[in-house]
Amino acid sequence: MSRFAPAALSPLHPETLEQLSRISTPTLTTQLFKLGFRNAFLHGVRPLCPDRRMVGEAVTVRFAPAREDYSSYEVLADPRYPQRHAIEHIEPGQVLVMDCRGVASAANAGDILVSRLHVRGAAGLVLDGGIRDYTSVQAFGFPVYALGPAAPAHVVRHVAVDENVLIGCAEVLIVPGDIMVGDGEGVVCIPRAVADTVAARGVEQEELEAFILEKVRRGAPLPGTYPPGESTLAEFQAWKERQNR
Amino acid sequence: MSRFAPAALSPLHPETLEQLSRISTPTLTTQLFKLGFRNAFLHGVRPLCPDRRMVGEAVTVRFAPAREDYSSYEVLADPRYPQRHAIEHIEPGQVLVMDCRGVASAANAGDILVSRLHVRGAAGLVLDGGIRDYTSVQAFGFPVYALGPAAPAHVVRHVAVDENVLIGCAEVLIVPGDIMVGDGEGVVCIPRAVADTVAARGVEQEELEAFILEKVRRGAPLPGTYPPGESTLAEFQAWKERQNR
Amino acid sequence: MSRFAPAALSPLHPETLEQLSRISTPTLTTQLFKLGFRNAFLHGVRPLCPDRRMVGEAVTVRFAPAREDYSSYEVLADPRYPQRHAIEHIEPGQVLVMDCRGVASAANAGDILVSRLHVRGAAGLVLDGGIRDYTSVQAFGFPVYALGPAAPAHVVRHVAVDENVLIGCAEVLIVPGDIMVGDGEGVVCIPRAVADTVAARGVEQEELEAFILEKVRRGAPLPGTYPPGESTLAEFQAWKERQNR
Amino acid sequence: MSRFAPAALSPLHPETLEQLSRISTPTLTTQLFKLGFRNAFLHGVRPLCPDRRMVGEAVTVRFAPAREDYSSYEVLADPRYPQRHAIEHIEPGQVLVMDCRGVASAANAGDILVSRLHVRGAAGLVLDGGIRDYTSVQAFGFPVYALGPAAPAHVVRHVAVDENVLIGCAEVLIVPGDIMVGDGEGVVCIPRAVADTVAARGVEQEELEAFILEKVRRGAPLPGTYPPGESTLAEFQAWKERQNR
Amino acid sequence: MSRFAPAALSPLHPETLEQLSRISTPTLTTQLFKLGFRNAFLHGVRPLCPDRRMVGEAVTVRFAPAREDYSSYEVLADPRYPQRHAIEHIEPGQVLVMDCRGVASAANAGDILVSRLHVRGAAGLVLDGGIRDYTSVQAFGFPVYALGPAAPAHVVRHVAVDENVLIGCAEVLIVPGDIMVGDGEGVVCIPRAVADTVAARGVEQEELEAFILEKVRRGAPLPGTYPPGESTLAEFQAWKERQNR
Amino acid sequence: MSRFAPAALSPLHPETLEQLSRISTPTLTTQLFKLGFRNAFLHGVRPLCPDRRMVGEAVTVRFAPAREDYSSYEVLADPRYPQRHAIEHIEPGQVLVMDCRGVASAANAGDILVSRLHVRGAAGLVLDGGIRDYTSVQAFGFPVYALGPAAPAHVVRHVAVDENVLIGCAEVLIVPGDIMVGDGEGVVCIPRAVADTVAARGVEQEELEAFILEKVRRGAPLPGTYPPGESTLAEFQAWKERQNR
Repeated sequence: MSRFAPAALSPLHPETLEQLSRISTPTLTTQLFKLGFRNAFLHGVRPLCPDRRMVGEAVTVRFAPAREDYSSYEVLADPRYPQRHAIEHIEPGQVLVMDCRGVASAANAGDILVSRLHVRGAAGLVLDGGIRDYTSVQAFGFPVYALGPAAPAHVVRHVAVDENVLIGCAEVLIVPGDIMVGDGEGVVCIPRAVADTVAARGVEQEELEAFILEKVRRGAPLPGTYPPGESTLAEFQAWKERQNR
Repeated sequence: MSRFAPAALSPLHPETLEQLSRISTPTLTTQLFKLGFRNAFLHGVRPLCPDRRMVGEAVTVRFAPAREDYSSYEVLADPRYPQRHAIEHIEPGQVLVMDCRGVASAANAGDILVSRLHVRGAAGLVLDGGIRDYTSVQAFGFPVYALGPAAPAHVVRHVAVDENVLIGCAEVLIVPGDIMVGDGEGVVCIPRAVADTVAARGVEQEELEAFILEKVRRGAPLPGTYPPGESTLAEFQAWKERQNR
Repeated sequence: MSRFAPAALSPLHPETLEQLSRISTPTLTTQLFKLGFRNAFLHGVRPLCPDRRMVGEAVTVRFAPAREDYSSYEVLADPRYPQRHAIEHIEPGQVLVMDCRGVASAANAGDILVSRLHVRGAAGLVLDGGIRDYTSVQAFGFPVYALGPAAPAHVVRHVAVDENVLIGCAEVLIVPGDIMVGDGEGVVCIPRAVADTVAARGVEQEELEAFILEKVRRGAPLPGTYPPGESTLAEFQAWKERQNR
Repeated sequence: MSRFAPAALSPLHPETLEQLSRISTPTLTTQLFKLGFRNAFLHGVRPLCPDRRMVGEAVTVRFAPAREDYSSYEVLADPRYPQRHAIEHIEPGQVLVMDCRGVASAANAGDILVSRLHVRGAAGLVLDGGIRDYTSVQAFGFPVYALGPAAPAHVVRHVAVDENVLIGCAEVLIVPGDIMVGDGEGVVCIPRAVADTVAARGVEQEELEAFILEKVRRGAPLPGTYPPGESTLAEFQAWKERQNR
Repeated sequence: MSRFAPAALSPLHPETLEQLSRISTPTLTTQLFKLGFRNAFLHGVRPLCPDRRMVGEAVTVRFAPAREDYSSYEVLADPRYPQRHAIEHIEPGQVLVMDCRGVASAANAGDILVSRLHVRGAAGLVLDGGIRDYTSVQAFGFPVYALGPAAPAHVVRHVAVDENVLIGCAEVLIVPGDIMVGDGEGVVCIPRAVADTVAARGVEQEELEAFILEKVRRGAPLPGTYPPGESTLAEFQAWKERQNR
Repeated sequence: MSRFAPAALSPLHPETLEQLSRISTPTLTTQLFKLGFRNAFLHGVRPLCPDRRMVGEAVTVRFAPAREDYSSYEVLADPRYPQRHAIEHIEPGQVLVMDCRGVASAANAGDILVSRLHVRGAAGLVLDGGIRDYTSVQAFGFPVYALGPAAPAHVVRHVAVDENVLIGCAEVLIVPGDIMVGDGEGVVCIPRAVADTVAARGVEQEELEAFILEKVRRGAPLPGTYPPGESTLAEFQAWKERQNR
């Protein structure tokens, strides 16, 4: 455990994960921006299954550059090898996030490892590296977010060196226990301490924006509508009350 | 209006826009090359709807790097904010082109703004930046060309600073009034002064190349056929006359 | 012929090409790694038809940067121009590999040239450059691997200067006569001298990994299974014998 | 004038410019960070004369991508051409900042233009582009900050399109009237509204850090010293009072 | 301590460090290549004092991407903050190596921290990030290797998260206890297990190449001389024996 | 010899080389631009000895990506290896230009090879790769232009595959026999066919610009002076006649 990772995870509101699974990543980044977090979206990390949603707590693996005395197929047989150990011990609902140093030309997982994550009940896999057996992995329907397909195994470029420490993934800090949310757009990392707030406010923003989009499609001008002025907000409240009756 | 933008737009031949909508972007770049324009294709800007065509006159918005005192959600409520003002005042048949400085990791438009463009009758949207609500925007069927999906709003990286000035987009100069043409391959900017010529010659090239492709598929060798020699050109003229009879 | 290209090609085992056409590129990179080849996968070169397989011997074309006195549409009429000459003289089963210097913004082939390759019975086309008439080329079903679509013809950025010499393509050395294999993941270049070995061992690895994947999907833990321990290997042998009975 | 540029410049404290000329750019970025500005340092822009200091108000020029009908040597003879016009009308003490789109391979100024700036009393030149006649310009001793030397004139890659609008330079927003400060490390852009505050606090920080550096060189441990604890701050106050006596 | 870092360091031959301090980094990379290590040179990391040599055992610090709740000036006051803790506890003769993720635009150390390393007797500082107070640090004459000058403090882009774990620095794996050697060309990381061998063979290679260079300067042709044939090697042995007499 | 390289070199005007050695690379790129050549300056290739001039005819070597069966220290002993063969057979006054594929992290020459070029009377060495033994090579005073220092030998990344063919170097086409000119700014490649013209016009431009610079330093305004109007040109002619008297 890295010196600065939290010793124990604070509890989440019981509805938070379910709410987050319904909020789009654009809305999540907006709510995070308003709380002062400007860098939460993992750029370049794309879904293998764009119509699947993903939500879960982060566990992490860290890769460092390969070296001939550290990186080999032999080392993969060691059950303590962080990449294999983390997969073998993941718990249901967790998302495995791997720091692959932004290298798109090597694959840090393929169909066998993803299958193991799937069987163990993981909620997803996120990495700023490549995936091999890409089409086969897509067919699983398990949420995977990566830079793209790549045939060579990770030992060509990397060695796994740590597990469940603070990492960077696609230039975003990931703290074990943070909430990873993915949709067709990509992945957002929500700092655990603000997850409840982001979930509650995000649900509201989604409702409001659905209302605004509908108005705009019917011809409303932008000024006063988006962002909403007082009159639009009043209309929205009235509409919402009618909905909830 | 930037010092060097044209004060009034020269008229186009009445058939030019319709012709351009039938000519592929590869043919357009070839005709432009022959007129001395080597840099007209917006590289990396990809269609959200590859099977839609786009043609229209350019209006422009320019973004500069974000700064904490200039970039915020509050500024978006100002109806003079160039991004919002340009969308709200676009005219039917125009294409909005935004200089997003090639930044793929922030979104310069989403479903609400694209919907407003659509409702106002715009012909398309082109930007060297990201689009949020990507799948939702794709479903509109409105021609949008961008670097790809990105969740964070543009205020994280940009501030809109100007409207209808000369801009660069994807390393191509865009002058307001130029003709933007898009297909499944991407977008070409045609300098207004040569649009009539490019349209007329492009239609011819397309016919000739369809004829050549057919010959090659039936087994003709490249020499004499592509590029066409005298004999192939004569065959083509004869075939064309038969067609037009 | 470049000074260091082989004068004559050594013969391949009669089953090698057929075997390679059934082995995935991840498996091929693993077998090559085990033989000491760490850099065989052409990164960033993607299939236009991801569900087609490709296998064949490499012939090569080399492009250099354009210069106004060397790069023009006129030069394309010269039947000795290396790009055209190589296409016109390709033999059935060969794969044309073009060194396009990693430039994605220009197209080194379009529908007419690809059609000619197709008609002549070539096995595929691989290039670290762009393809124009992208959708049209996709519709042929002919195996093409490229960086993506681009409208401008290659003369904007390149001039073809050599044929059938050693080249780099997507940062991988390609020697004329090497075996190019492509699948939905991308392309691997197999040095001719090891092609028989790679094919034989690759077939075996594919069988073993299919067996392992099946075990993992049924709940087997990673340790002892992947990589396989003695017990898993024994199970595999028994299963294989049952299959072959 | 761009829509969002200030109409009139607010006055500065009479000592601000002189103070800023004594504060290092690291100290300035720290003071700006503490006021909420995280992106003020022009990365990659290096001094031609590392031992000269520069301070002055920004005037700006904007370049867009070259196009054959806009970029030529002929256009340079037009006294309204923004690059030439801005140089010809610069006032004593101003710094010319040019948005060269981060292109290092073309030169946006050379010895003649820099000489004219010098003669007119400008305080410096800053650009995220190249400089030609590099050695000759270095010999002037006039403060110039650029990406490096480049021989080709800017018309190969750019056309100047605007003057004194908001620009980006090396990924930093520059508003006309902002204060540009340069030292051997590079250039910082200080938003005009906070220049007085940054100057006052920067002078204090420099004194404190000189005191801390001296303590560390004499063997003080980091904890309590850097950042300074209460005891170090008290020592500093005492020392400062002794100095001022 | 990272899971895969060695628990205790194996002893070095008593002459190894002194020998390494006399061998150039080109020679060291050649000896490492011959032992199978192809990736030992930290590319892009340049000396602040090109005429100083550096040799010592690596201790490491790891930085991850900044986040608003983790990266601030306040956290620097915590004596456990890895960047500060590692500096405060470095031992004489050690080299501090920092994984700054290749970010050149922020500074991971400045004059005060480098001064503390100097006072504590460290052998050097190596980082794939920026240095602030560049000129001041150069004046110390203490061996520092970095990407270049940068004014902003590291908190703008990074947070220090670990100490003395395996890291990547400039795309090279660094294991605590490895031997870092620097000269005017840059820095090589020598895996501890091969340091004695590399030192012994490197000394020999240097003598041989000095002999070869001398021959070439006097007009010897390359064939037979470089690489040396039997006759050149015999000459060298004879010359060496004369020297040692 | 590559298919498109010239069989025999056309003669140059006897004064051309001497004239070119006095003309700056900015002036040369301007003259080439006026003749239609927009891409002649080798960007990023910097002089090891900025105060030396270089002029001579190009001979070329081409490198391709390394592969374990082609790239080794053993192959260097083969006198036909293109890198060694080209150096061993260079003629007095020629400039060796190497296509190193823009890779800065490996060295394609060091002190021994440069020394051999020097002894053989070569006019210079130009490469878009690294140089090892950098300081030692600088001390020779022999004109070398490269991307920078790098310790690892080229075999880590490259294999030399061809000699005296058309190559790209730093994104510029180099035809054997072209004239390479270098100064403190970098290197320009002048197509042989226009070398006489460029030399003659370049000498004139240099005189005119020296005259203009002098006027500007004495306070002349830009309009009418730079670019020169009729009156300035008349003054220049008069001055020139006085000089020549």
